[in-house]
Amino acid sequence: MIRTYKYGEVAPEDIFARTEMPANVENIVSEIIDTVRRDGDEALRQYNLEFDRSREPLEVTPEEIDEAYRSVDPELIEILEEAAANIREFHSRQKRNSFILNEKPGIVMGQKVVPIERAGLYVPGGTAAYPSTVLMNCIPAHIAGVSEIIITTPATDGKISPVLLAAAKIGGANRIFRVGGAQAVAALAYGTETIPAVDKIVGPGNAFVAEAKKQVYGIVSIDMIAGPSEILIVADGTCVPEVVAADMLSQAEHDRFATAVLVTDSPELAEAVPQELEKQLKVLPREEIARASIEHNGKIILTEDIETAIDIANEIAPEHFELCVDNPFDYLDRIRNAGSVFLGKNCPEALGDYFAGPNHTLPTGGTARFNCPLSVDDFTKKMQYSYYTEDALAKIADKVARFAAEEGLDAHGRSVLVRKNRKER
Amino acid sequence: MIRTYKYGEVAPEDIFARTEMPANVENIVSEIIDTVRRDGDEALRQYNLEFDRSREPLEVTPEEIDEAYRSVDPELIEILEEAAANIREFHSRQKRNSFILNEKPGIVMGQKVVPIERAGLYVPGGTAAYPSTVLMNCIPAHIAGVSEIIITTPATDGKISPVLLAAAKIGGANRIFRVGGAQAVAALAYGTETIPAVDKIVGPGNAFVAEAKKQVYGIVSIDMIAGPSEILIVADGTCVPEVVAADMLSQAEHDRFATAVLVTDSPELAEAVPQELEKQLKVLPREEIARASIEHNGKIILTEDIETAIDIANEIAPEHFELCVDNPFDYLDRIRNAGSVFLGKNCPEALGDYFAGPNHTLPTGGTARFNCPLSVDDFTKKMQYSYYTEDALAKIADKVARFAAEEGLDAHGRSVLVRKNRKER
Repeated sequence: MIRTYKYGEVAPEDIFARTEMPANVENIVSEIIDTVRRDGDEALRQYNLEFDRSREPLEVTPEEIDEAYRSVDPELIEILEEAAANIREFHSRQKRNSFILNEKPGIVMGQKVVPIERAGLYVPGGTAAYPSTVLMNCIPAHIAGVSEIIITTPATDGKISPVLLAAAKIGGANRIFRVGGAQAVAALAYGTETIPAVDKIVGPGNAFVAEAKKQVYGIVSIDMIAGPSEILIVADGTCVPEVVAADMLSQAEHDRFATAVLVTDSPELAEAVPQELEKQLKVLPREEIARASIEHNGKIILTEDIETAIDIANEIAPEHFELCVDNPFDYLDRIRNAGSVFLGKNCPEALGDYFAGPNHTLPTGGTARFNCPLSVDDFTKKMQYSYYTEDALAKIADKVARFAAEEGLDAHGRSVLVRKNRKER
Repeated sequence: MIRTYKYGEVAPEDIFARTEMPANVENIVSEIIDTVRRDGDEALRQYNLEFDRSREPLEVTPEEIDEAYRSVDPELIEILEEAAANIREFHSRQKRNSFILNEKPGIVMGQKVVPIERAGLYVPGGTAAYPSTVLMNCIPAHIAGVSEIIITTPATDGKISPVLLAAAKIGGANRIFRVGGAQAVAALAYGTETIPAVDKIVGPGNAFVAEAKKQVYGIVSIDMIAGPSEILIVADGTCVPEVVAADMLSQAEHDRFATAVLVTDSPELAEAVPQELEKQLKVLPREEIARASIEHNGKIILTEDIETAIDIANEIAPEHFELCVDNPFDYLDRIRNAGSVFLGKNCPEALGDYFAGPNHTLPTGGTARFNCPLSVDDFTKKMQYSYYTEDALAKIADKVARFAAEEGLDAHGRSVLVRKNRKER
C-alpha cells in the first residue's frame, strides 16, 4: 500500500498531492456572483431554496443563537469554552502596538495599527459541523478589534447545527446569515440589502467557495485559497509505530487528496508503520477516505539522520510539521519553513486543530515558505503617517528636490520647494 | 478643466481613475513565462537582445556596481544615504519579536518570526531611473534578515543607470541581473541556471510585469498589483492655493491615469485652485501628462466641514492622504483607511516618496481598507509551534477526542487517545 522511498528518490514537488479544480467551476461561480450583485437578497433566497431546500429568513436571530447555545450538551460547551480560552491566550500575544518616532526636531512619524471594519467568515455546512473553524477565525478577528464579524453558512433543510451557533456566540461573531456556496462569498464581497459588504473574507469551503474567493479577491481581501491538507512527520527510532500511524491517519481521514508523509532515519520504524496503518485503518469510521489518501499520497522517506529529515521539511514547507523526537527544542532553530510545528512525541496535530491555541488555518502547498498561519494581523492593517514643521521641511527641501529631479519628476520637487520659497519670502 | 462637485455629487467608486489592461497581455505574458521555464538563461538572453538590444552578461559584477557607485555625483550619493538612513530608522521599528508562552505546566507554545530566504525586486528601466524604488524595497528586506536580495532590471542598450546600481549598493541588494519585463518575473519565480528562484517578488512595473506577477502568484508571494496612483488632499480655508495646486500636480505628473482630488470646506480655496493649477501646469516639463491627469481625473469636492472630508477619505481609502490643516493631530483618530497619511501643511507627498522614512509602496484602488504599505512584515513569516509533555496531553486528551468526535473526525481523536492509553497501560 504505502510506498517507502530513500532520500532523494522522490522530488520535493511530488511529495504532496494536488487537487484538480472540477471543470466549469469558474463559469458557474462567475454567473452566481453576477446574479447576487444584480438581484441581491432575492438571488440568495432562490439559491437557498434550490441548493439547501431552505425557506428560512436569511439572518439568524439572537434568540435563535441563544436557544441553540442552551440546547448543546453543557460538557461540550465547557470544552468549547476551554479551547476558546486557549486560542484567545495565544492570539492575544499577537496584538501589535502602534509606534511613533519623534527623535528629530519638528518631525513626527508613526505607524498606526487599525482593525479592519468588517470581516466575513464562511463556515461550511453539510454532513458535519465544524465549530473549531468558527473559533479559529472569530477569535483573532475579535482580538484585532473588528467591529462586525459576520458568519455565513448554508442551512441544509433550513437548519444550522446548534453547536456552530454556540461556537459563534463563544467566538464573538456579531451576525450570522443562512447562505452557503459561492453566493455567500458574493454577498460578503458586494453586500446585499441584508448582508453588509465586508473588507476581508476568511474560512474554508468547497471548490465553489474557493473559486468565488479567488474571483472577488481585490474587491475584498481573502485569507488564502487552501489546497489539500498535509502533514510531514519526522520521527526517530525511539517512536512507537502505533502512535506515528495514528497521527498519519488523523491527516488522511480529511479527504482523499490529503497527504501524510513520514520521514525517519529508522529503517525499523519505516518497516513497522505500514502494518500499523493497515491495522488501524480497518477500525476507522472514515476508512475509505483515509485508505485512499494513504494509498495514493502517503509516503515514507528514509534519511540518514534527523537533520536531513528537517531539511526536507524546510524544502517543502509543510502545512503541519510534527517533530517526534525526545529533544525537539534542539532543532527549533533549524526549522525554517512550516505552517504549524508540533514538537515532541506528545503533541499530535489534532491537539492543534482543536485545542492548544495556535491557529489551524495554515498555508498549504509549500506556501509556508512565505505565508503565515491565520493571525490577529490578518484582521488589522498598518497605516503610516508623517508630520513635518515648516522649519524641518525647509532644511531638507533642496535634497528632496534634487532626488526628485534625478527621477525626472519635477512637480514632485516643486511641491517641496514652493513651501520653502514662501517661507523665505 | 478640473470639475468641482458638491459632497454627494460624485460616487465614492468614481472618484479615482482606473487603468484598463491592454488587450492580449495575458497571452503574451503566459507565453513568455513558459519560454523562460523551458529555456532558462537562453530565453533571457534572447529577450534581452530583442527587447533591450543588450548582449551584456546577465549578472552585473560587484566591480561594475562599485564603479557605478563611484561615478555618481557625491552630493547625490549623500542624499541617497540620508534617505536610506531615514527609511532604515522608520522600518527598524517594524521589526517583530518572536514570543513564547509557558505559563501552564508542561506546555510550551510560541510564534517564531523568520525572514523569507530570498526576495526578488523588479526595478523598471527605460527613460528614467528610480533609485527611490530600490531603497524602499531593499531596506525593509534587509532589516527583515532576508539572506539574498536579488534585483532584476532591464539594461536598455546594455546599460543600467549608475544611480540605480549605487542605490542597490546602499540598500543592501546582494545580486543584480540585467533582465526586464515578464521574463524577469518568470526567472525570479521559477529560477534559471543563473538566477535563483525567490520566495517573494516585489516592485513596480508596466502592464507586462504586473500581469506576470499575477500569473506567478501562488508559486511565489508578491507584494501587490498596484493600480494607478492617487492622492486625496483635505485642505481647509487657511491653505494657500499655490501650495495645494503644487501637491496635486506632483501626483498628476506620474501618468495620465493618476488622480489628484482636493476635498475642502472652503469655497474660496475651491475657486482659486483651478487657476493655480493652470498657471503651474504651463511651466511643468511633464505638462502633457499632468494636464491629462488633471483634466480627466482631477476633482475638487466641496464639503460642509473637515470631518466630512475625512469621512470621504475613509470611504475611498486613498493611497496618499494629505490632511492640510493647522491641527492635524486632532483628527488622527478619525482617519481609518489610507495607505500613507501626510499631516499638516508642511508634509507634501513627495517628501514621503523620497525621503521621510515611511514606505512609498502603498495600497491603491481602495485596498487600503485591508492592505498595508510595504513593510518589514512583507519579508518575514510567522511560524507557530507547540509542545506538550505526556502528562499535559493526558490531562486534556478526552476533551480533544470529544471535540473531534463532534466534527466526525474519529482518527483525530484517536491520535490523542492512543498516547493517553499507552501511558495508562
